[in-house]
Amino acid sequence: MARARKGPLIDPWGSELPEDYVRIIEHFGLEIFTDDLLEALPRPNKLMRRKIVFCHRDLKVIADAIREHKPFYVLTGIMPSAEKLHLGTRMVIENFRYFQEAGAKEAYLLVADLEAVATRGLTLQEARRRALEFYIPAYIALGIDPGKTKFYFQSENRTVLRLMTRFSAKVTMAEMEAIYGQLTPGKVVGALLDAADILYPQVREKMPGVIPVGIDQDPHIRLTRDLVKRTRSEFGFTAPASVYHKFTPSLDGSFKMSKSKPESCIWLPEDPASTERKIWKALTGGRSSLAEQRAKGGQPEKCVVFELFKQHLVEDDRELDQIYEECRSGARICGECKTYATELMREFMEDFKARLEEARSMVKDLEFVQE
Amino acid sequence: MARARKGPLIDPWGSELPEDYVRIIEHFGLEIFTDDLLEALPRPNKLMRRKIVFCHRDLKVIADAIREHKPFYVLTGIMPSAEKLHLGTRMVIENFRYFQEAGAKEAYLLVADLEAVATRGLTLQEARRRALEFYIPAYIALGIDPGKTKFYFQSENRTVLRLMTRFSAKVTMAEMEAIYGQLTPGKVVGALLDAADILYPQVREKMPGVIPVGIDQDPHIRLTRDLVKRTRSEFGFTAPASVYHKFTPSLDGSFKMSKSKPESCIWLPEDPASTERKIWKALTGGRSSLAEQRAKGGQPEKCVVFELFKQHLVEDDRELDQIYEECRSGARICGECKTYATELMREFMEDFKARLEEARSMVKDLEFVQE
Repeated sequence: MARARKGPLIDPWGSELPEDYVRIIEHFGLEIFTDDLLEALPRPNKLMRRKIVFCHRDLKVIADAIREHKPFYVLTGIMPSAEKLHLGTRMVIENFRYFQEAGAKEAYLLVADLEAVATRGLTLQEARRRALEFYIPAYIALGIDPGKTKFYFQSENRTVLRLMTRFSAKVTMAEMEAIYGQLTPGKVVGALLDAADILYPQVREKMPGVIPVGIDQDPHIRLTRDLVKRTRSEFGFTAPASVYHKFTPSLDGSFKMSKSKPESCIWLPEDPASTERKIWKALTGGRSSLAEQRAKGGQPEKCVVFELFKQHLVEDDRELDQIYEECRSGARICGECKTYATELMREFMEDFKARLEEARSMVKDLEFVQE
Repeated sequence: MARARKGPLIDPWGSELPEDYVRIIEHFGLEIFTDDLLEALPRPNKLMRRKIVFCHRDLKVIADAIREHKPFYVLTGIMPSAEKLHLGTRMVIENFRYFQEAGAKEAYLLVADLEAVATRGLTLQEARRRALEFYIPAYIALGIDPGKTKFYFQSENRTVLRLMTRFSAKVTMAEMEAIYGQLTPGKVVGALLDAADILYPQVREKMPGVIPVGIDQDPHIRLTRDLVKRTRSEFGFTAPASVYHKFTPSLDGSFKMSKSKPESCIWLPEDPASTERKIWKALTGGRSSLAEQRAKGGQPEKCVVFELFKQHLVEDDRELDQIYEECRSGARICGECKTYATELMREFMEDFKARLEEARSMVKDLEFVQE
């Protein structure tokens, strides 16, 4: 069974990957995020240190570029399909920001407005409105530095249009179905637009790039890497590197926080009274009685509240370590953790809301690349 | 059996439609180009008068607009996929020019460079080069008035990109397969781009439009008309009218002149010595001996040389009538017609080549719409 290897940082909170992730890694030929790679990255963020970033493609290329001060880019996209974001989205931004601060020559944040139109049935006007009123401010509030980021809308980028069209001639329907399952015309267009976005920065300047994504976005990375190979002589693109983080679990303990289960989902933003109520109902690794917990200790590996600390709420590794040890020893009980998580979530949400308001006032001054 | 009805113009050269065309009309629900419609169009061109234009969709809407001096547009596209054009292409341009001169408020000639990339495997650079060096000058040489025409490249038109994407969400793969047969990602993108082009003028100004096409292009018209219905509340487009001409037959008598049979195809341009050789080998409606022909008369309905007169070389209806009658009576033999066709073709090619050179010098001053 594949494991993330033990590293210099004591990693008491589950170095073993759940079966679901192991299957994904093996099936799609991803590379495990090893300690060697962790060491090769300067000042890794908490997602990396804690192996929440658990696999990647070609990240060594980017680590080398960082160390050698060579140009590379980081890119991510906003899909303005819903009215809300949930907590899980934060991790993409945290990784984006990591590479931006680690010296990316260019950082692109694109609005996949056309993809929302093609695959989610939105009108372009609605997609644009949502992006400007909420998504872009939220991404800035979550840590994207607008002064160091290039923004664009797919619908305003003719270079993306041209690349997408070129790519449409370089893949068969059967190959796309093998990656995406059953297709609609909208999905065909959406997937090709995604590949075009990922490679668009290389039209402007030849350099490698890294795409931080949730594992569910890997199909786009696979398609894009195939297309890089098939257009080698024409474009000479470098295959995109990618870095994958685990999902934030649903508060009921299931694999992934999802908008389809609103009671187990933390919105960005959400009212503290509401997050408090949800956190108090969250699945923990607690025992069936206080006496048993004091005697045997809790099971933080199974605890969604601990996962919230690890992925989102606790920055300091030593503090996280301490929570882990206190739980395992039976010194710390679930009520204490829920109270603390509620408090940290309140602070986070208050901070986020204030930043969101500030970011909203900045949006009108943003410049969007038009091509 | 469906017939084009007899009309005020004596139409001795086959008012009966070949089976192939009848099947097409019935299968796809096209409307026959009737004498009533012919009368409703001011100064019909020779293709209309001779019922080479044999069917249409919604052309009455355009006839009404012409008569009532209301705005409408005409649009056609250049697919710069080959290095050459053949004679058949001329008819699209003749019909385009008819509507342009009949008072179209806007006339659009677009270069389907992205479609060539998506469906023919060209690079964008190559598609662009061919369009600028040959196709656009050829279209001007064949009668498009560049001063009254809006030109654009698909690859420079973000409005077309947006429409195409929107349409991708409004049709299923099964529906597209029912229209186009087996699909590739390139065909999906190409077909949606086509629909977007056809409706693009209506984004700029609400008005009906007419698309002159060969019957093989009707799938794009059908898809576009379906998409108009499905986006009624969002865009309120008017379904495009279309007008279809018969194919120029291959010189060996088969259904359609085609690049795949170069010896039976007349190129634009082609050297007079070469066209002479091909015309002398063309299928005629002649009898097996001179004596039989003098006695029974020829069969112009079966004669490719007569079809060249009718579709391309003889402008004057009375002259065409005379050729027809002389052939039927046995007074005129095939050698005379071939000599005359050779001569008219030489004049046409010399004129075309001179216009082509002139048009090439104009291309650098053309303005292309960018959106």
